[in-house]
Amino acid sequence: MSAVEARLEKLGFTLPPPPKFPSANRTAGVLSENLLMLSGHGSGLPNLPGVRQRGKVGSEVSEQEGYATARAVALMMMSTIKEIVGDLDKVVRVIRIFGMVNSAPNFERQSAVIDGASDLFFEAFGPEVGQHARAAIGVAELPQRFAVEIMGDFRVRL
Amino acid sequence: MSAVEARLEKLGFTLPPPPKFPSANRTAGVLSENLLMLSGHGSGLPNLPGVRQRGKVGSEVSEQEGYATARAVALMMMSTIKEIVGDLDKVVRVIRIFGMVNSAPNFERQSAVIDGASDLFFEAFGPEVGQHARAAIGVAELPQRFAVEIMGDFRVRL
Amino acid sequence: MSAVEARLEKLGFTLPPPPKFPSANRTAGVLSENLLMLSGHGSGLPNLPGVRQRGKVGSEVSEQEGYATARAVALMMMSTIKEIVGDLDKVVRVIRIFGMVNSAPNFERQSAVIDGASDLFFEAFGPEVGQHARAAIGVAELPQRFAVEIMGDFRVRL
Repeated sequence: MSAVEARLEKLGFTLPPPPKFPSANRTAGVLSENLLMLSGHGSGLPNLPGVRQRGKVGSEVSEQEGYATARAVALMMMSTIKEIVGDLDKVVRVIRIFGMVNSAPNFERQSAVIDGASDLFFEAFGPEVGQHARAAIGVAELPQRFAVEIMGDFRVRL
Repeated sequence: MSAVEARLEKLGFTLPPPPKFPSANRTAGVLSENLLMLSGHGSGLPNLPGVRQRGKVGSEVSEQEGYATARAVALMMMSTIKEIVGDLDKVVRVIRIFGMVNSAPNFERQSAVIDGASDLFFEAFGPEVGQHARAAIGVAELPQRFAVEIMGDFRVRL
Repeated sequence: MSAVEARLEKLGFTLPPPPKFPSANRTAGVLSENLLMLSGHGSGLPNLPGVRQRGKVGSEVSEQEGYATARAVALMMMSTIKEIVGDLDKVVRVIRIFGMVNSAPNFERQSAVIDGASDLFFEAFGPEVGQHARAAIGVAELPQRFAVEIMGDFRVRL
């Protein structure tokens, strides 16, 4: 087992199955040279405490549930990374994540929500690899009314 | 004629003129080493059936028109790629597109709209080159009330 | 002093302190090989004329204030770049910026707002280095009700 997965397990998490897509036109991520660019993740989330697949954060979904949901999205992203490069220890840097929160009007705590993903990347990969750039925004609508969608860029060794 | 353009022609499409910008401060795309990063495309769309330059998808613009519009945006993006690298066959991978749909409240079919672009990239470039990562979101407003705006990252050979 | 900073000074600007983050999980930017990917900037803006840290552009914040605010965000981004790579002259290309405007309903002038950043990058780095790809969108909500948030990708020499 990779060191990253061992750390996830110690935190109480296991990797869920990677997301599936309805059409072959797209995929969960593309590795081009040693830059891995992931699709927006947000579908097929594991059924962990507080995770809400759908809903507006700030009204139907609480900030705390949003945090748990963003963490579940990060687990999905790690599952995709493992599927594409074979081993999470091949990630040499979490470069940047872009977190989109399906936000109720006047909800301004997108940073606290996306911390659910940032904290997990930081803990699972450790400070040197896991500290990343980030943007977090509130969007009007997400596909299928997903609560959170996150994209990410990673440097890997081949 | 490049193989990609021949495939486009077979599908019934020709490349429109690339977009123009009001100021020299920006451009339709930047090639840095062999990574081509495109601007958000959405202006100057060709007048094809169903294409709607402006409007909110889900109210003023139908899902089917949104699909046709996203496809027209993809054509514009290919036109930009050709202008910058000279030949669409130089694209070795469509890495990722980021699709933004000007969405009416409660419209949740952004994926179906952006499929208009994804399907065309997939068909024009073929499965190995054309299958890409993607994110699709619903945004509150787009410049000049554009219906769809799409950014993209491409790996090319020089 | 670097040539870029000298040009900024001639324009009447000095670099503000780079942004700070409440948690070590993230940082203002990550340099991976020679690709520098910046976080969404928008916090801690310098108190220059017209700059509005918070508010909806198109209602609480005017287009002109939005322009001044986007320019202040660009200054923050340059401050981050200097902190990470040591010298703004090491930027070989401003590749792309992604500008998010906290938009009042029906505000459609996001391009004019984000020009505040694009114009400054173009003037400070000069046409060859400073001309960039760009996307500009209107978002429903930004963290802490920020008026403008901008991400950016830069190629640097090490």
